[in-house]
Amino acid sequence: MRLKLTISYDGRAFEGWQSQAGNNTVQDHLLKALAETAKEPVRLQGSGRTDAGVHALAQVAHFDAPDHLTMNPYNWVPALNTKLPAAIRVLQCEEVAADFHARFSATGKTYRYDLCTDPILSPFKAGFAWHVPRLLDAGALVEALDVLKGTHDFRGFAANRGNETPETDYVRTIHAADLETLPDGYRITFSGNGFLYKMVRLLTGAAIHSAQGRLRLGDLARLLDQPPELPHGKSPLCAPADGLFLQEVRYGE
Amino acid sequence: MRLKLTISYDGRAFEGWQSQAGNNTVQDHLLKALAETAKEPVRLQGSGRTDAGVHALAQVAHFDAPDHLTMNPYNWVPALNTKLPAAIRVLQCEEVAADFHARFSATGKTYRYDLCTDPILSPFKAGFAWHVPRLLDAGALVEALDVLKGTHDFRGFAANRGNETPETDYVRTIHAADLETLPDGYRITFSGNGFLYKMVRLLTGAAIHSAQGRLRLGDLARLLDQPPELPHGKSPLCAPADGLFLQEVRYGE
Repeated sequence: MRLKLTISYDGRAFEGWQSQAGNNTVQDHLLKALAETAKEPVRLQGSGRTDAGVHALAQVAHFDAPDHLTMNPYNWVPALNTKLPAAIRVLQCEEVAADFHARFSATGKTYRYDLCTDPILSPFKAGFAWHVPRLLDAGALVEALDVLKGTHDFRGFAANRGNETPETDYVRTIHAADLETLPDGYRITFSGNGFLYKMVRLLTGAAIHSAQGRLRLGDLARLLDQPPELPHGKSPLCAPADGLFLQEVRYGE
Repeated sequence: MRLKLTISYDGRAFEGWQSQAGNNTVQDHLLKALAETAKEPVRLQGSGRTDAGVHALAQVAHFDAPDHLTMNPYNWVPALNTKLPAAIRVLQCEEVAADFHARFSATGKTYRYDLCTDPILSPFKAGFAWHVPRLLDAGALVEALDVLKGTHDFRGFAANRGNETPETDYVRTIHAADLETLPDGYRITFSGNGFLYKMVRLLTGAAIHSAQGRLRLGDLARLLDQPPELPHGKSPLCAPADGLFLQEVRYGE
């Protein structure tokens, strides 16, 4: 039986999503809890990686429950949560079709990025917002976000992961890049059909630079749709992991 | 020059307010930052202790700036914050009268206590709310809080600190004990002229027990105004530190 997990985590405590030596990633903790519950090793496929310090409101992953286990899907939720650190919670477990794939079936994602513009970053926001107490023009930020929307080749807003090939497809569509006012700053919400490595942080950094008057809109636009021969990571600024939350992974139409 | 500091902290990272061996208390970190700034040891008096795990939105403390320092009060804020961990922030520094005393001049305090009643405690609420997913009757909780209001001998809601004497005064006045609905639970706000050791947690625990039908209102009322010979800490339940925030310390009328 293939099961889909919806998972929330406070990224501050972990070395990102992806399993690695040291075993302090979100996937590592989930694999351990899954193996303890299933009494055998289980493979777990996430919708995509999140970096160290990046948070998730609703990350998605799938696994195949061993045939001998007759547990109801919803019983996996407490079974896993009692074995997980409090900074990781499984919110939901549901049966899905055998061909469901957390990564390849995903049709879109939403990320949000929180900015704190107060002169002092509250202890309760430390690690959860990028502290930008410098002058920030909200109108200019909206204009910059508008420039970034649409279907583009985003290689100028992708960090190199090392597995790129000449066939790597950098074209993505950003449906929404919205600004919302918070009591102590702003929230940017990006929705798109997919995001490249560090793309949300690079888009956010560039938009902030623009809103601070350090990057003109025309120059921001010229970072889009760069020809293949241009180097990666040309964006002027990568926003820190702190303010970034994976908010939703969408499947289906 | 006597200076008043307003301080916010995430209590999860520290062994409470009060200085102790190990030096990982909020006061210890502040003393270190003050001494580094003043270039000499400085004494710091808080409005009162908070236990390990208890948070502060606005704790108050005072100290006397060495005479040779001509720094403006507001310059202490960044000077201290750059030396403090991100989980402690000095929000304000202002000059006060030479006879101002953070503890003895205080005329009232407000604490709030957050409860999460969702079946699953969000990773972002871990350490910031008491997880009470069991049945909770909000109407009964309001009734229990009403019983606790007013001027009473609260020795039944005080933990023993070891320095009590026959003259210890346990009479306090609770002006407000209000319930507010949060998206994932409730917030109780207690305002009073002062609070005994662990009093807010003992009041909260008793009120929750009552709202869960485990303590009758009459029995709750009987825990108030106990005669001096009764033992301390008779309250049925001490709420965990997690959900407790010192919200305000009041001075003056």
